Amino acid sequence: MKKHFLLTPGPTPIPPEVALKEALPILHHRTSEFGEIFVNVIEGMKYVYQTKNDTFILTSSGTGSMEAAVVNLLSAGDKVIVAACGVFGNRWEKICAAYGVSVVKIDAEWGKCVDPSKIEQALKSNPDVKAVYTTFTETSTGVVNDLKTIGEIVSKTGAVLVVDAISGLGGQDLRTDEWKLDVVVSGSQKGLMLAPGLAFVTVSPKAWGLVEKSKLPKFYWDYRKMKKSVDSKETPFTPAVTLIVALAESISMIKKDGLEKVFARSNKLARAARAAMKALNLTLFADEKCACDVLTSANVPANVDGGKIVKMLRDEFGISIAGGQETLKGKIIRVAHMGYIDQFDLFAGLVGLEMVLAKLGHKIEPGKAIAAAEEILGK
Amino acid sequence: MKKHFLLTPGPTPIPPEVALKEALPILHHRTSEFGEIFVNVIEGMKYVYQTKNDTFILTSSGTGSMEAAVVNLLSAGDKVIVAACGVFGNRWEKICAAYGVSVVKIDAEWGKCVDPSKIEQALKSNPDVKAVYTTFTETSTGVVNDLKTIGEIVSKTGAVLVVDAISGLGGQDLRTDEWKLDVVVSGSQKGLMLAPGLAFVTVSPKAWGLVEKSKLPKFYWDYRKMKKSVDSKETPFTPAVTLIVALAESISMIKKDGLEKVFARSNKLARAARAAMKALNLTLFADEKCACDVLTSANVPANVDGGKIVKMLRDEFGISIAGGQETLKGKIIRVAHMGYIDQFDLFAGLVGLEMVLAKLGHKIEPGKAIAAAEEILGK
Repeated sequence: MKKHFLLTPGPTPIPPEVALKEALPILHHRTSEFGEIFVNVIEGMKYVYQTKNDTFILTSSGTGSMEAAVVNLLSAGDKVIVAACGVFGNRWEKICAAYGVSVVKIDAEWGKCVDPSKIEQALKSNPDVKAVYTTFTETSTGVVNDLKTIGEIVSKTGAVLVVDAISGLGGQDLRTDEWKLDVVVSGSQKGLMLAPGLAFVTVSPKAWGLVEKSKLPKFYWDYRKMKKSVDSKETPFTPAVTLIVALAESISMIKKDGLEKVFARSNKLARAARAAMKALNLTLFADEKCACDVLTSANVPANVDGGKIVKMLRDEFGISIAGGQETLKGKIIRVAHMGYIDQFDLFAGLVGLEMVLAKLGHKIEPGKAIAAAEEILGK
Repeated sequence: MKKHFLLTPGPTPIPPEVALKEALPILHHRTSEFGEIFVNVIEGMKYVYQTKNDTFILTSSGTGSMEAAVVNLLSAGDKVIVAACGVFGNRWEKICAAYGVSVVKIDAEWGKCVDPSKIEQALKSNPDVKAVYTTFTETSTGVVNDLKTIGEIVSKTGAVLVVDAISGLGGQDLRTDEWKLDVVVSGSQKGLMLAPGLAFVTVSPKAWGLVEKSKLPKFYWDYRKMKKSVDSKETPFTPAVTLIVALAESISMIKKDGLEKVFARSNKLARAARAAMKALNLTLFADEKCACDVLTSANVPANVDGGKIVKMLRDEFGISIAGGQETLKGKIIRVAHMGYIDQFDLFAGLVGLEMVLAKLGHKIEPGKAIAAAEEILGK
């Protein structure tokens, strides 16, 4: 018997109330009964996205919605800016490359966020750019980009702003309309407290202008098909019905608390996690000036094997945190705190981390991390 | 309080044992625990597919797997044969058109199956054809194509055979390797007794030859990424974890019975359904010589509104059957009998149908349909 604690940046834990909805007898997707749920979920997603823009549900991983945001907006040979600061930012570049889209790349040092003024400069030097692709919370490093400023800059040009908010939506304040974000993609398994399998997107009127002109080939990802279907309370193809029914429940939980409270919770957990990491004699990886609220990253001490921390936590205690990806493999650890992850889950993760670090020979003072976290969470 | 009876060709009912697995605490997808389930499910799918070919799981609707079977095998300007006999066969043509693939179309009259000799002729007249796309069970009309003969024909040429078995896999005997089917796509919400959200594909060595040369753009659908991931017991992107965990359960149920028994059950239900339809004074829509085992279609009597039959069954009795699609709208009804749909579900549907037809003024003799079905099911 082993209890599991999931502190990874997706999938995140699912509230039992939501999970059980997945087990209800399945509905047919072309019925008024499902249509009503579907319309409510779309409205609920607009609330979470803080938008009035068209909002669609895709049956796919979040990456599917990223690809859709390339093939629906562009034509081969088009030029875009990709402003990246980690693994997921770079994914935009890979998708564009697969479709023959020319990329002007802005790379922030991993652990720092994108400098909006670099986007401004790149837009000036490349007036033919059709879109700017960037990331909201970059969970490979733990930073959040200043979308408000980036949105202001891009909105003054003819380009549209496309944001990967897969890990951040529902975890940290994201104001689609107020910040002028044209296309915002997301996924179900992070702040929305649901199993993976659904992806989302919002499309602004400015982005629809590009959709009209886009010539990249598409079928399953076609926004025009989605728009037509949404208008008749349906999806173009058989959707992941049980996940949509469960999503209705998680949205209703989010609405009950209200976004403000949800965001305040992640923010408090993030501050507590950072204080606790320091109390464990770890240095933070993400620049504190732009550390995100949904995940905390810390450097693995020089004398410790980073892969071992993650493995020991999982094998000995059933606690799942994430290690570093690509060039950061073995060098950082990442602890998520969003959605249904609460302070006591975080405590479990921190105590486990404390015990594992001690075993691996890192100098710590037992209890100090919890005290540091409590100091913030108790307020 | 209304009980629901789902007799639609997808989603089909989900066994409670399977549905409850969807509600279990979620696993992280990059763990040995999930990896083990994943490998078992891949092996299980090979059993269901009756194949040794590479088998992949996609997080998408079945249509996503159809699109993947176009973008992974072809390049723009390539020529293919699409042999269609209904709505889903035509979908191959639409996907090909979206990608600039040139289509030689073979159309069987709706209600009849594809004539294999026409494929043979088309292959002879078009030796440059890269692939033949067709359908296993065409649920828009209720027929099954003779894949054994088609497989034999195509295997003698350089072209690969691509089959949409979304509605037929796990419902009716399909022998991927024995029948020389190169690429077979499927979905989770039919014979596999699972919620929609997963799609599948098998890829033969001959098909891999095309994959190497294919130049159509792809990212999410890329078989090469899937192959690389499967080798390390993973998926390229976050998969629909809860659905895969539930799939392990439904595959285990299928294995326990054995494919032979599963197929015999659908076949018996199909024969019973056809006898019952006749006893209801309805004529069958699909040619009985190639009627499929997973669904029965019947013509709506001239004096009855077909849409009303479906609507009344649903509204008054909670029974979901399907009507006709596109040009068959209002003209036929379709009753599914695959997966977890058993004889008593079918009886419920038949009695409901009897009651509704009588209300709509169609001449029937109460009890006669059940008697006709019983005659076959009792044997």
